[in-house]
Amino acid sequence: MPDHRPAIIGVMGPSACTADLAAKAEELGRLIAAAGYTLLCGGGAGVMEASAKGARSQNGLTVGIMPGHDAASSPPNPYIQLPIFTGMSEARNLVNVLSADVIVAVGGAYGTLSEIALALKCGKPVLLLDSWDCTPPGPELAPKPARVSSPQDAIKAIGEILS
Amino acid sequence: MPDHRPAIIGVMGPSACTADLAAKAEELGRLIAAAGYTLLCGGGAGVMEASAKGARSQNGLTVGIMPGHDAASSPPNPYIQLPIFTGMSEARNLVNVLSADVIVAVGGAYGTLSEIALALKCGKPVLLLDSWDCTPPGPELAPKPARVSSPQDAIKAIGEILS
Amino acid sequence: MPDHRPAIIGVMGPSACTADLAAKAEELGRLIAAAGYTLLCGGGAGVMEASAKGARSQNGLTVGIMPGHDAASSPPNPYIQLPIFTGMSEARNLVNVLSADVIVAVGGAYGTLSEIALALKCGKPVLLLDSWDCTPPGPELAPKPARVSSPQDAIKAIGEILS
Amino acid sequence: MPDHRPAIIGVMGPSACTADLAAKAEELGRLIAAAGYTLLCGGGAGVMEASAKGARSQNGLTVGIMPGHDAASSPPNPYIQLPIFTGMSEARNLVNVLSADVIVAVGGAYGTLSEIALALKCGKPVLLLDSWDCTPPGPELAPKPARVSSPQDAIKAIGEILS
Repeated sequence: MPDHRPAIIGVMGPSACTADLAAKAEELGRLIAAAGYTLLCGGGAGVMEASAKGARSQNGLTVGIMPGHDAASSPPNPYIQLPIFTGMSEARNLVNVLSADVIVAVGGAYGTLSEIALALKCGKPVLLLDSWDCTPPGPELAPKPARVSSPQDAIKAIGEILS
Repeated sequence: MPDHRPAIIGVMGPSACTADLAAKAEELGRLIAAAGYTLLCGGGAGVMEASAKGARSQNGLTVGIMPGHDAASSPPNPYIQLPIFTGMSEARNLVNVLSADVIVAVGGAYGTLSEIALALKCGKPVLLLDSWDCTPPGPELAPKPARVSSPQDAIKAIGEILS
Repeated sequence: MPDHRPAIIGVMGPSACTADLAAKAEELGRLIAAAGYTLLCGGGAGVMEASAKGARSQNGLTVGIMPGHDAASSPPNPYIQLPIFTGMSEARNLVNVLSADVIVAVGGAYGTLSEIALALKCGKPVLLLDSWDCTPPGPELAPKPARVSSPQDAIKAIGEILS
Repeated sequence: MPDHRPAIIGVMGPSACTADLAAKAEELGRLIAAAGYTLLCGGGAGVMEASAKGARSQNGLTVGIMPGHDAASSPPNPYIQLPIFTGMSEARNLVNVLSADVIVAVGGAYGTLSEIALALKCGKPVLLLDSWDCTPPGPELAPKPARVSSPQDAIKAIGEILS
């Protein structure tokens, strides 16, 4: 990776979330930017907005991969500096996971579950913070996602993965 | 739905599977075609091939939504009559779930999990046959997938959903 | 190609067209189905609908690659037997060209131009019937599209390409 | 647009180009970054690389929308700071045009033609610098692309469009 290309951390999570989860997402975004990483998310509300807000508080670069065609159909949250409009609805979830070096799922409804699954399918490291618990029908699959218990725990795990 | 447009049943499953699972997928494909439905799958090996084989044994129409550009990069299994080439790799999983009226997940690795998740995200009915068991981090989500215990059980559930 | 997999002819054209162009598209659809080919189009109105109508008059199989998520957001025209919903808006134009063995552009606005360009980029044979006339900035590019003067001329060219 | 969200200029062009065209693309990239805009391109060689090189010489942000899954299958040129991996091959051309506020086509083979067409289909302003010349089969279409004769002419037109 060239010097000028910082690692990209993808924060995946639902557009509706509790205040507690939003606080964790914001803290995670803060730590991501403080560590010099770029934050990438789906660009929407909830966990996505909280994590971008945290990253912007540290002047981090925030990228939003939007499902719609433009800001009218798919408004980026106010903390997204660089919105990428795909016009491909949920198919943009693949862009999210391929463009990030590490994925952190924070909470999660079905969209987040699809991102966890796609990331593992593509061999990306996945960290789960208060997120899905899934058991495959047959033998254990590789790679497995790793559970983290806090934003601090997540940023430590990211550092180890990228080192 | 016009008379000439039969319901489409999506069978999602891994490209590598046990003989037992393949037998179930083939039986499911047979029942789908015998009921007059079109079978749609990812067009590959394993569960996808077995289900298409079953459907072809009843002269059913079999559609494969392929990840690659052409038959060289993404060979349809021999039981696919109509291969649709997307050139969009795993993003084609969204096409699978949107194009089917009901989704049946048979077994499953991470790709299948992404299809289950996308289908539920899009509000599609999902049946699970020897497939994933997932628990969300917060309260129960709607819609929930339904478990079926056999191909016969699946086809009965499909009939009820479509009626 | 297995015996059971007929060649797929993609008819690309605008959703609004003159009566004269619709008549040509319908005749082309009729000839495509009469020759035993499957007709694939974008599933909408105008040239797409007229070609599908022609194909259905000969009991041909008609496939519509839809931009939207479902019939509510992206209604297939009444002559589409098999609608494939992509949820990827104009990105579905790539699916159109990759899934067809030969592309015939009939008339055309900007969407059709994008399909002509993508098809040539992917090395697909392209026939132009009353369609775009484009000159590249540098030397001639390969492959070049071929002009045809009538539906009959198109079907003859298709036969030669597929033979 | 929030203060922190600079306009994005998409530079579309072929991966193989003459030294003269590369010089123009590099000058265009330089002017784009000097004006405070973000440069977005397809991330590859030729015109894409030259424009990103020019933008980096002014410390501009350069975004590459890549067709492949990762840097191994789809290497970003050395002047791309932020590679977005789509895994969707040529379907990423839609992301290029939707994410840019103005499109400048510099030279062009078939991929660039598809981007010009998609951009016009989506109502985006398109500037042509030594690029395609296309005539529709029927009456003139709106919007029409505008011809510019130099990078300086392009940046002036961009300023007027964005004002």
